Amino acid sequence: MTQTLPPPATSAVDQAHRLSLDPLAMPERLLLGPGPSNAHPDVLAAMARPPVGHLDHTFLRLMGEVQELLRYAWQTDNRLTIPVSATGSAAWETCIANTVERGDTFLVAINGYFGHRMADMASRYGANVVIIKKPMGQAFSLEELEAALVEHQPRLLGLIHAETSAGVLQPMEGVGEACRRHGTLLLLDTVTSLGGVPLFLDRWGVDMSYSCSQKCLSCPPGLGPVTIGPRAEERLKSRTGKVPNWYLDITLLSQYWGSDRVYHHTAPVNMNYGLREALRLLAEEGLDAAWQRHRRNAELLWEGLQSLGLKLAVDERLRLPTLTTVYIPEGVDGKAFARSLLDEEGVEIGCGLGDFAGKVWRIGLMGQNSAAENVERLIDLLRQRLPGAA
Amino acid sequence: MTQTLPPPATSAVDQAHRLSLDPLAMPERLLLGPGPSNAHPDVLAAMARPPVGHLDHTFLRLMGEVQELLRYAWQTDNRLTIPVSATGSAAWETCIANTVERGDTFLVAINGYFGHRMADMASRYGANVVIIKKPMGQAFSLEELEAALVEHQPRLLGLIHAETSAGVLQPMEGVGEACRRHGTLLLLDTVTSLGGVPLFLDRWGVDMSYSCSQKCLSCPPGLGPVTIGPRAEERLKSRTGKVPNWYLDITLLSQYWGSDRVYHHTAPVNMNYGLREALRLLAEEGLDAAWQRHRRNAELLWEGLQSLGLKLAVDERLRLPTLTTVYIPEGVDGKAFARSLLDEEGVEIGCGLGDFAGKVWRIGLMGQNSAAENVERLIDLLRQRLPGAA
Repeated sequence: MTQTLPPPATSAVDQAHRLSLDPLAMPERLLLGPGPSNAHPDVLAAMARPPVGHLDHTFLRLMGEVQELLRYAWQTDNRLTIPVSATGSAAWETCIANTVERGDTFLVAINGYFGHRMADMASRYGANVVIIKKPMGQAFSLEELEAALVEHQPRLLGLIHAETSAGVLQPMEGVGEACRRHGTLLLLDTVTSLGGVPLFLDRWGVDMSYSCSQKCLSCPPGLGPVTIGPRAEERLKSRTGKVPNWYLDITLLSQYWGSDRVYHHTAPVNMNYGLREALRLLAEEGLDAAWQRHRRNAELLWEGLQSLGLKLAVDERLRLPTLTTVYIPEGVDGKAFARSLLDEEGVEIGCGLGDFAGKVWRIGLMGQNSAAENVERLIDLLRQRLPGAA
Repeated sequence: MTQTLPPPATSAVDQAHRLSLDPLAMPERLLLGPGPSNAHPDVLAAMARPPVGHLDHTFLRLMGEVQELLRYAWQTDNRLTIPVSATGSAAWETCIANTVERGDTFLVAINGYFGHRMADMASRYGANVVIIKKPMGQAFSLEELEAALVEHQPRLLGLIHAETSAGVLQPMEGVGEACRRHGTLLLLDTVTSLGGVPLFLDRWGVDMSYSCSQKCLSCPPGLGPVTIGPRAEERLKSRTGKVPNWYLDITLLSQYWGSDRVYHHTAPVNMNYGLREALRLLAEEGLDAAWQRHRRNAELLWEGLQSLGLKLAVDERLRLPTLTTVYIPEGVDGKAFARSLLDEEGVEIGCGLGDFAGKVWRIGLMGQNSAAENVERLIDLLRQRLPGAA
């Protein structure tokens, strides 16, 4: 005989954690840090639409639109192109969980904080992680990468296209071809480049990439676009045993996102409303125009910072238009300065990570925030608030 | 010498995937399926607020509010209580990834679709999965569970509190005590019960639980609340080796959500705005009142369905107030009927899963959707549209 529960008694509920709160009231911020950046008003309005069901045919159509526009943004024909129902880090792990098998040699090129994360993730899936390293602020030359491919013959190479901790843009010419010569899959982090700097996944021979919603796409954080090309799909098919991660199993995900529409999990409906609008706006502007705008405003920022006597951390040839690292001047407490800028002016800039901690500020101009008026506002504020700048 | 990229040429961008779309326009739905349910207007308004940074002190305060209100909703003091930055399935996997080690015996009690998922997930982490089974529509007695604990001496027992595929509420009396007697961790799925039916995690001796944002909390999908108690924390500490999942590593997550505030990933800021409002509204109504409302409206629905001559799939003693399974009458194409209800009336009901596929409809009354007027609307529509109902 199955036992039934006693009916709930009002006195039984413990009130200890029952906070009594006012309705949400958050401050307005201009987000010029490493992300999130401000979301476009149309994106926010879309997120406030009442949700439909995650298997509603109107939502399935929207899923197709999101996939197609992601292909445009990445310049890829990859069938397996979807937003993972989590943030960019989970999209990253999707690539690794699905294609790494125990004992695979995974070459990680580290020139900042995020390379270390790549190594940590890969090691959790049993990869034999091999590291090549450059100081923060530098990029890898094709020769350096190819030498490592020759030496280690890795099954995968993990590379960061836009290093958000360092402000470096990795040159991609020849890298994909070199990986193909050595039978290596190329995994490229495009978290801070998708929609902001020139990116041609297929032309570059990139096999897998991941990004996020909250940087150059002007959407809040919460979705992690991922794309997996034919060579990586082959690797998937030749796996022995299940992917050791259920939520990020791309085969299960693609049955939901593909024509089968098999239930896997409940997609974040409203986040996808937002991402669809963000991608629609990007397509409306056009990739070229968006890239050029990011470049133009970055140059304005660089000139402005230098006019204040500040020193940029990355050589112009490798400097990332979407995220600028600038040295904190002598005698200034970088963290306290950023905090007062946030509290007194509502403007967020980022502090350093990893080897750049305490040394640089990180200034992002991403998505709709890449605008001349934002550059002018920030430069004016720095001029007013930095001792000695005039 | 590092190679630089050629400047982007306008002609270089491939326009093949550049969809030209109208602004988002989605239909209004009354979501009476297995979830998502309709979000509360205040929740949607909160989600449309401009995001602040994920390390902004105002957001860190909000994170604390969300954690505290989750403890209230679950009736637990667990320190490790957070919303995972993904959907409920990822919260589920968080429990498993962190506490299962290769070779652990994991007892899964299956009385519906979701028990099979529990077994699949656990097997991916190397568990020795042992299954006990009941037909859909039934629950496990304490005697049956204890007999399996005695026989298999598992390190974990996975149990579904509210089986969303079957519409069954699992009686919990004595289960936690039995697990403690056998040194077994109790993992309880509360995806369709949190906020909707009486739930006392600590009093019941539940060691871990997970839920979602989109059912009885009236928030869109996108966050997966998870809570991990002291006995499960002990297991965490005694692990050998890293958790084989980076994104869901609760130790890394708790450094971000705890007092350390160490950067791990970028939290879905706007989704957390929404969840904070959803939990605030639940605390304002009070758990008792919310549970009683769900029960009252479920009884209205059951009476209404029976008055139409329809047969409910679950015995009243085990019937889940938040999700009702009702047999599709002879001669009716259940899927086509649900589709026409959606397209012609804007009302979503769910079809069957697993052994109930093609046999039942699933009607959810969750969160703010648990209201007498919704029950009346649905019963009226069924009366009009079902052949023979009058």
